[in-house]
Amino acid sequence: MSGYESLSVPPEGDFFRSKWVDAPSGIEFQDPAVLPEGFRAGGVACGLKGGGATDLGAVVCDAEEITSAILLTANAAAAAPIRVCREKLQQDRIRAVIVNSGNANASTGEQGIRDALAMREALATELGLGPETVAVAETGVIGVPMDMDAVLSGVGGLASSVVADGGIGFSEAIMTTDKWPKRVSLTVDGVTLSAQAKGAGMIEPGFATMLCFIQTDAVVGDAGTMLRRAVDASFERITVDGQMSTNDTVLFQASGSSGKELPAGLLDAVLLQLALEVVSDGEGASRVGRVEVSGAADEEEAELVARKIANSPLVKTALLGRDPNWGRIAQAAGQALAGQDIGELGPDVIEAGDIAEGGREAELALRLERGDGGAHVFFSDLTHEYIVINAEYTT
Amino acid sequence: MSGYESLSVPPEGDFFRSKWVDAPSGIEFQDPAVLPEGFRAGGVACGLKGGGATDLGAVVCDAEEITSAILLTANAAAAAPIRVCREKLQQDRIRAVIVNSGNANASTGEQGIRDALAMREALATELGLGPETVAVAETGVIGVPMDMDAVLSGVGGLASSVVADGGIGFSEAIMTTDKWPKRVSLTVDGVTLSAQAKGAGMIEPGFATMLCFIQTDAVVGDAGTMLRRAVDASFERITVDGQMSTNDTVLFQASGSSGKELPAGLLDAVLLQLALEVVSDGEGASRVGRVEVSGAADEEEAELVARKIANSPLVKTALLGRDPNWGRIAQAAGQALAGQDIGELGPDVIEAGDIAEGGREAELALRLERGDGGAHVFFSDLTHEYIVINAEYTT
Repeated sequence: MSGYESLSVPPEGDFFRSKWVDAPSGIEFQDPAVLPEGFRAGGVACGLKGGGATDLGAVVCDAEEITSAILLTANAAAAAPIRVCREKLQQDRIRAVIVNSGNANASTGEQGIRDALAMREALATELGLGPETVAVAETGVIGVPMDMDAVLSGVGGLASSVVADGGIGFSEAIMTTDKWPKRVSLTVDGVTLSAQAKGAGMIEPGFATMLCFIQTDAVVGDAGTMLRRAVDASFERITVDGQMSTNDTVLFQASGSSGKELPAGLLDAVLLQLALEVVSDGEGASRVGRVEVSGAADEEEAELVARKIANSPLVKTALLGRDPNWGRIAQAAGQALAGQDIGELGPDVIEAGDIAEGGREAELALRLERGDGGAHVFFSDLTHEYIVINAEYTT
Repeated sequence: MSGYESLSVPPEGDFFRSKWVDAPSGIEFQDPAVLPEGFRAGGVACGLKGGGATDLGAVVCDAEEITSAILLTANAAAAAPIRVCREKLQQDRIRAVIVNSGNANASTGEQGIRDALAMREALATELGLGPETVAVAETGVIGVPMDMDAVLSGVGGLASSVVADGGIGFSEAIMTTDKWPKRVSLTVDGVTLSAQAKGAGMIEPGFATMLCFIQTDAVVGDAGTMLRRAVDASFERITVDGQMSTNDTVLFQASGSSGKELPAGLLDAVLLQLALEVVSDGEGASRVGRVEVSGAADEEEAELVARKIANSPLVKTALLGRDPNWGRIAQAAGQALAGQDIGELGPDVIEAGDIAEGGREAELALRLERGDGGAHVFFSDLTHEYIVINAEYTT
């Protein structure tokens, strides 16, 4: 174990602990409570979770000239907050976001849409912002009407609790059954960047929602392109159980107040590490695998094969069992390319020995001989705890 | 439990025990040892499995005017016997098949092809048949060279052991870790049909191979079309863990010696019941689900959605946990149609209540409002035993 479970204390320097992440040099880690200049955040308990746990959070940027981008789940049965953010949000000028972690507001029909709109409108009013500049994200149980009395009663306190060093409070208010909060704050070359994520490990809704919020005082030109690229190489590369959430959201806000550009590779490194935290804290996960496919006909084919391998329950149980079972990799690859003939895939083109090693992170590789396409995917193992979480608790 | 585990005694009348199978009327069940006139079968121990277990089987038809059809896995990394049957077999005139259940002969390269050819040639020689009329099927550990000394030393005894009432011996020789043999012999309207299958529950290769052999004395015109249709509605409708084997084979042989046609629906009913036996005896399976999707844009879309639901580990653990968690069905359907907007799927269009009932067979349904496409898939639950089988045993 490489200490992945120790992140409940602020990471301070060991944030980039995956061997798969290349971080830029010269980084100074901050207390993860610290946000870039101009940003405030916080979290309060409004009663959705019960027991006094914080469950309502917000991030606000005071800089009017903000640049932003937001990526939302492609799930065709997306939740109400996703629909609101898709259709009624000024996505490149998002000043604030309100998040609850008790109710996903999914499969709640037209009332759900009204509730998501009311939730963000309440925060917008408190902050004196236009509602179309406020995003909304929700995670928790699905198919249950929102307790809007709780939410609306909490918004006033939330608006007055957002502070410049509120990163920790916010990161905890967005958690569901994450075993540890996922957050970082760092400074490099005069730019500060902070981020908070929550991941895959929800009991009640039965499927994992991944949320991530990133704030920086860097000057960012095309936030959408930058975020898309970083997410393509991080959150789009991970799988816990192959299930796409109805609520996944990634929000990137850049205030520009440092007057400096974001150092190359920084956003990519932070999002990849956070994505690996999400996999590592996936439902029941005990190990993380990385499968690399090369020599495919093209990149799309390589990704198809890599995902089939990463989502194979046989490969996932082999990762758990430390079993370098290359035959399972051959089988999954052959299934991904069903109907074609790629010959038999033997141990000469498959590497799985790393699975048998003791490490928390294991590497698999498959070399095809069809072209130059390559891709990789990160995945968790399939464990008894996954079944306990998903079969033995009922909604 | 509806007695699915009791099939180690000949089924005699309770073979069609699934509520989802409609069998023709007037069926008389035979001892499953009994084969249609002109067929012989048997099994011997050649030493691949060890411990004296039978591991080499054959079915032979003495009628020269046989009609046959064979369906083979589409896995792109298919095993040597699949390649031999694809390329070097007279598929509509298959007189015999030789099967071993100790070694899948997969990912064994050119030597594997030579071994599969040698195996069937040995039987063909013993029986005085042309090798191109003999099929070969193999199941067991993968990536391990064949012990051809064992196989070839067994073929002589095999050829002399095939007998008219050898259905039981053959059905047992093809088993790997099946908990019960899957076989039937029946007579209806002057036609006899027998079948033997083995299913999903292999430890050593790490993935399941499904084999099925059907013999009848009916007169069959287009065996290929008839088999394709029956398999499309049975073995193509089942999933244990979403993993396509390198070795799946279904062989249908019709001698025509009864001079009568096969009663309508008989082949479909037998194959569907056998397919359900395979799901029910899937690795670690304790329950079988049937998911029906209606109102999709077309049949292809309906099947895509049904398969995504059936293969969702969240739905499979809900089946285990008797949790009528319709949200997991909505999420999987939304993922299947990712990128489109189908609105939120609520409990008004999803039926999952059957999951909470006590039965061995549970039904789920999802009604979309996109068109007239419908499809269904049968699947097993995901249990602790699946993980034990696949993670705690290593190859």
